[in-house]
Amino acid sequence: RERSPLEMSLDRKFDLIAKAIDANKAKFIERLREAVAIRSVSAEPEHRDDVIEMLDWVNKKLESLGAKTEKVSLGKQTLPNGMILTLPPVLFATLGDAPTKKTLLVYGHLDVQPAKKEDGWDSEPFELIEKNGQLCGRGATDDKGPIMAWLNAIEMFQSTKVDIPVNIKFCFEGMEESGSLGLEEALNARKNTWLSDVDFTCISDNYWLGTSKPCITYGLRGVSYFSIEIIGSNQDLHSGTYGGNVYEPLADVVWMLAQLTDLDGTILIDGIYDLVSKVTVEERKLYEAIDFDQEQYRRTIGAKKLSRSSKSELLMNIWRYPSLSIHGIEGAFDGQGAKTVIPAKVIGKFSIRLVPNMDGETVEKLVIGYLDKIWQKRNSPNSYRAYQNHTGRYWLTDFKHPHYQCGARAIKRVFDTIPDYTREGCSIPITLTFEELTGNNVMLLPIGGGDDMAHSQNEKINIRNYIEGTKMLAAYLLELGSL
Amino acid sequence: RERSPLEMSLDRKFDLIAKAIDANKAKFIERLREAVAIRSVSAEPEHRDDVIEMLDWVNKKLESLGAKTEKVSLGKQTLPNGMILTLPPVLFATLGDAPTKKTLLVYGHLDVQPAKKEDGWDSEPFELIEKNGQLCGRGATDDKGPIMAWLNAIEMFQSTKVDIPVNIKFCFEGMEESGSLGLEEALNARKNTWLSDVDFTCISDNYWLGTSKPCITYGLRGVSYFSIEIIGSNQDLHSGTYGGNVYEPLADVVWMLAQLTDLDGTILIDGIYDLVSKVTVEERKLYEAIDFDQEQYRRTIGAKKLSRSSKSELLMNIWRYPSLSIHGIEGAFDGQGAKTVIPAKVIGKFSIRLVPNMDGETVEKLVIGYLDKIWQKRNSPNSYRAYQNHTGRYWLTDFKHPHYQCGARAIKRVFDTIPDYTREGCSIPITLTFEELTGNNVMLLPIGGGDDMAHSQNEKINIRNYIEGTKMLAAYLLELGSL
Repeated sequence: RERSPLEMSLDRKFDLIAKAIDANKAKFIERLREAVAIRSVSAEPEHRDDVIEMLDWVNKKLESLGAKTEKVSLGKQTLPNGMILTLPPVLFATLGDAPTKKTLLVYGHLDVQPAKKEDGWDSEPFELIEKNGQLCGRGATDDKGPIMAWLNAIEMFQSTKVDIPVNIKFCFEGMEESGSLGLEEALNARKNTWLSDVDFTCISDNYWLGTSKPCITYGLRGVSYFSIEIIGSNQDLHSGTYGGNVYEPLADVVWMLAQLTDLDGTILIDGIYDLVSKVTVEERKLYEAIDFDQEQYRRTIGAKKLSRSSKSELLMNIWRYPSLSIHGIEGAFDGQGAKTVIPAKVIGKFSIRLVPNMDGETVEKLVIGYLDKIWQKRNSPNSYRAYQNHTGRYWLTDFKHPHYQCGARAIKRVFDTIPDYTREGCSIPITLTFEELTGNNVMLLPIGGGDDMAHSQNEKINIRNYIEGTKMLAAYLLELGSL
Repeated sequence: RERSPLEMSLDRKFDLIAKAIDANKAKFIERLREAVAIRSVSAEPEHRDDVIEMLDWVNKKLESLGAKTEKVSLGKQTLPNGMILTLPPVLFATLGDAPTKKTLLVYGHLDVQPAKKEDGWDSEPFELIEKNGQLCGRGATDDKGPIMAWLNAIEMFQSTKVDIPVNIKFCFEGMEESGSLGLEEALNARKNTWLSDVDFTCISDNYWLGTSKPCITYGLRGVSYFSIEIIGSNQDLHSGTYGGNVYEPLADVVWMLAQLTDLDGTILIDGIYDLVSKVTVEERKLYEAIDFDQEQYRRTIGAKKLSRSSKSELLMNIWRYPSLSIHGIEGAFDGQGAKTVIPAKVIGKFSIRLVPNMDGETVEKLVIGYLDKIWQKRNSPNSYRAYQNHTGRYWLTDFKHPHYQCGARAIKRVFDTIPDYTREGCSIPITLTFEELTGNNVMLLPIGGGDDMAHSQNEKINIRNYIEGTKMLAAYLLELGSL
């Protein structure tokens, strides 16, 4: 068959850029090495300056690519210990303002999780090492690698003199690993200005499901976090001196927590599952077609057994069903050794992952109602209070949207495969914020592999993912011109 | 009536010493302040050196009083995480070796429970503060205050040149709050040497029942400490990414812990109560005569309701019945805020207080058997291990012994009242060891008040208890001359 002029043109442009990317592989790895070397750990006050340095470093790169940049101050942060820190700024940048072009918004984060060699890393976490086709270092995949891939791709458009068919806006923050403090407010304030002409948003901050097949992500779970606070006395008591005569709050709280789920994780809170959208036959087929190695998934985490036995059920369990996890008990003895105390005040903490169509308010009502009910049944004289700490909504979009088809064609071009359309069990609250503030489609287009160990020891990105991922982003930018 | 020469002499001697004690009050408070400032927390590896420093500090004081001292190394301790720590030495000291005198053994401990201001203390726990007649600080009453009272009393005998009518041996350890590791072996090894001439043992490491009436204690509960360890994965998991697909160890452990007691504290472990000696009519009468204000007891701790409604039942509950307390869960999130992790490995911790005739071995068998049984019922695929951390026996002796009458006369002299004869709900396992190794009577002669909050926030000792307690120990030493 004959190719259309557009397709022809795309082919040619992509070939040019892809060759340039291959030719610059060493440079791109060096670029990532420099980025990893900056210890931009947002959770550690002593590295706050490194986070700011990291933002400056990217700021300079964007400027050298011709972007107009703006660093916006986000105010102060008060730590639980009372320490007050200046938040790192958020970096907004604009590359191109042709009124004839659509505008893409790219989001990413330049801060990383804490890492120390003694946590169990095989090498220094902030020195990128290359081994067996992997680039290992903190932030290699989460999220410095993908951000470098954006910079790489744009640079190659410019060096090959291929026109980028969209205007691009960048939103790079330095607090994602610490709750994205201040970001939502800064974006809200720009809803009718800087954000008003954004036509689609793309985020590369998640991972392929497995290790070989690319995917595009169209859904995330939300989360509601709850606390059960029980007070038995005005201070901790010696279990010898008081044990037997007091109603122990910790006994109350474990009794309460034990009634939230059954063995296989089914949530026992009345009415929760009534909120969950029903699985259709068509939807179930989607899960059956996904490339997902459940045995590898189990082995990676070292679990003896998973709570479901089929691939579809496992995927549905983390993508489209709620789950309830108990996280801990504030106030109880959590150290090593054998302290013999009856804690005076304990706070049991758990969270529920939200999926369509669970709205936070209804979930809160059901959960608190259930806790109140079982507390009545407990009949303890202790003081009790249950409350929701926070809630973040789920996100689900239509992966048949033309924007997603651009991503799919880019993947087909680079990896010669149709991507899986996936969802994620975790929350990236900013996704929903972008969708709501721009009123337009958001796509999660991951570059890293499912075994990249983000947040964990020996975080890495495969050289293949990094380089072919750069090509994929370039191809995606080319495809956006057709919208 | 005419006084006997001995009695006359005692009166005069006591008056001299009592006046000297009053005159040195400020110095004694300063001494306690210095002791409290040393953070001798035996449970925290980072404070192991402080425990050793605390022992050295008392060693020097004893030497300056003329005692012959010996620090005996107790070997190593392996923490559950595999870390190996050197145990603090035990301090043995001998003051006087007149063959014509009887020999008293004094035991105490120089380590303290953990304490942090943010646990809810009104002031820095390791800075003794004086307020409303109270000396507040970690270890003020448990057990640094009483040990200082011994040092004070002996110093005042010496400054007033009154002969101490007994030889005194001291055994001061630094691991009491962590199971007295190594001490029993060290004492066993000295059964036929250093301990062979001990005629009576006195321990000031417990508390009055209330706040105004002194008591002498003739019974203690023992304690067996247990851990339930459950492992679900090889690393902590993100509850978004894995929640719903894994069997969560924390859900298992709260389920297990919730089946140990019912609401009012009744232990659900099969066979436990069969081991407990039956209450006789005569024994019940003892409890009815004790000066115990149950309403004040309840108010002091701020509990809304106690688990029993009569004085006798409350006293029996902490003195002669077992109790089970849950202490916490190692590995679970215990901080403030909202961490969304599925802990990989959790260790639920609880202890059972032992009473006549519960032997540790049988209790261990019953507890582990019960845990194994309910774990079977749980049917979780996670790794499970339940074990006893340590066990310490109960102790019960005859309070009509002449040694106890010396204590009673000392109390009469200082406080002008007949003491209550009490038991304690808590454990001082070494009591039994001393009784068995010396073959002689052991008496618990408390100095602190019932509201001193040992092991808790705002631990304190009243200045009255500290100073009059010092006089009581002096009077007791004088009385021992009559035996």
